[in-house]
Amino acid sequence: MRIARYLANGKLCCGVLEGDRLTRLAGSPFESLATTRETDLLADVRLLAPVEAPRVFGVGLNYKAHIEESKHKAPTIPMLFMKPSTAVIGPEEAIVYPREGKEVHFEGELAVVIGRRTRRISEADALGCVLGYTCADDVSERPIQFAEMDMGCLLVGKAFDTFCPLGPVIATDLDPTDLDLRSRVNGTQRQSTSTSDLLFPVAGLVSYLSQAITLLPGDVIITGTPAGVGPVHPGDVVEIEIAGIGTLRNPVVAEG
Amino acid sequence: MRIARYLANGKLCCGVLEGDRLTRLAGSPFESLATTRETDLLADVRLLAPVEAPRVFGVGLNYKAHIEESKHKAPTIPMLFMKPSTAVIGPEEAIVYPREGKEVHFEGELAVVIGRRTRRISEADALGCVLGYTCADDVSERPIQFAEMDMGCLLVGKAFDTFCPLGPVIATDLDPTDLDLRSRVNGTQRQSTSTSDLLFPVAGLVSYLSQAITLLPGDVIITGTPAGVGPVHPGDVVEIEIAGIGTLRNPVVAEG
Repeated sequence: MRIARYLANGKLCCGVLEGDRLTRLAGSPFESLATTRETDLLADVRLLAPVEAPRVFGVGLNYKAHIEESKHKAPTIPMLFMKPSTAVIGPEEAIVYPREGKEVHFEGELAVVIGRRTRRISEADALGCVLGYTCADDVSERPIQFAEMDMGCLLVGKAFDTFCPLGPVIATDLDPTDLDLRSRVNGTQRQSTSTSDLLFPVAGLVSYLSQAITLLPGDVIITGTPAGVGPVHPGDVVEIEIAGIGTLRNPVVAEG
Repeated sequence: MRIARYLANGKLCCGVLEGDRLTRLAGSPFESLATTRETDLLADVRLLAPVEAPRVFGVGLNYKAHIEESKHKAPTIPMLFMKPSTAVIGPEEAIVYPREGKEVHFEGELAVVIGRRTRRISEADALGCVLGYTCADDVSERPIQFAEMDMGCLLVGKAFDTFCPLGPVIATDLDPTDLDLRSRVNGTQRQSTSTSDLLFPVAGLVSYLSQAITLLPGDVIITGTPAGVGPVHPGDVVEIEIAGIGTLRNPVVAEG
């Protein structure tokens, strides 16, 4: 099932996407996946980020080939940070290249959407608290990120408004252990991997976070980026595509 | 004005505290500070964290004497991280010492509560977007914190459920540049300083964050801790007192 959040004639809806048609849900997908008889054509609606103002937990250095390319040591525990909710945008919304930007990179990632309140869940049971999966772009301003990491923290380099595109839908019933993930900039492929290369797989990340933090419905975990990251500039278009989910497409624009 | 959030006979209220009496607000303090004629006795209510499920931005190494005690270099930009909303508790609520805890420290801090949506505000204008100030305890599990900082990130060591006591009230009309801040463990004074020792003062922090992140009503910035941090254990009681605000008091209990 592929669940979208969207505006239809100005009305906020959630619906199940099949082909070019959305069937509206009765309410929030975090409460029930029961559908109504109302439908919308995909071409007539505006897709939004699939979760509103989520808490976003980020993971660094989590693909083996990206760890090699970044020249960092492999983490022994997940390298975690948060991105503020104000960084989240939806499909086709613009990534704003900030005035301070010197080297802004895209990072294509698999995002996990938590479906129910969870604390201290085992790795074996962790996927049971997941509603589904979407695509993420963990946009990063490298010089600020690296200056922060040198101090032992990480926020602003990953936190600018619009630095967390999510979408286009939440796909349920996916096995996150071997999904094909590709990123393109202006149509040229830049990342291509399987989530089987994750150092800390999804179940391990969910379990690890939940040992400390009560996870809530709508929480998003962006699981780290594979090799192939690189700079983007105003005028570029970034696409993150994951098999079974779809393509998250965002243009980059200069700050006005 | 000192604004409390509290339960009165199970009903969620906000009110203005004067002496031992609360005068209820008509609604959220982020919308209006207009009061009603309804009052409650402080002794009859249960105070809550003064903001519900806030985004919490933390600052590390921000008091000159604490930087010396920690043996770190003084940051050249604010050392920022986030604490998840699930870490927030109110006055008298228990700080839960987690099963993983090896060395849990208290950290008394001045907390800033943002009053209105703000982006790219100047340092000169920054205090104008602040609703007021409260006390915070930036509880930290040091071994996990340091393992994360060695990797260049910071989350779990500061993110356990209950690791962010806030309260007892939001005090408006305070000058944050020279407030007396004291922390006590089991009645023994452990921290005593003025916020005038802050490396990055409140106005600078608000302005700096707002260059990247749209700040929202209810956002909380905990501004860093002075010298004198140290371990706490189950059975201890931690008090953070700031002149003009009051005392935030929390017992420490072992995880059940």
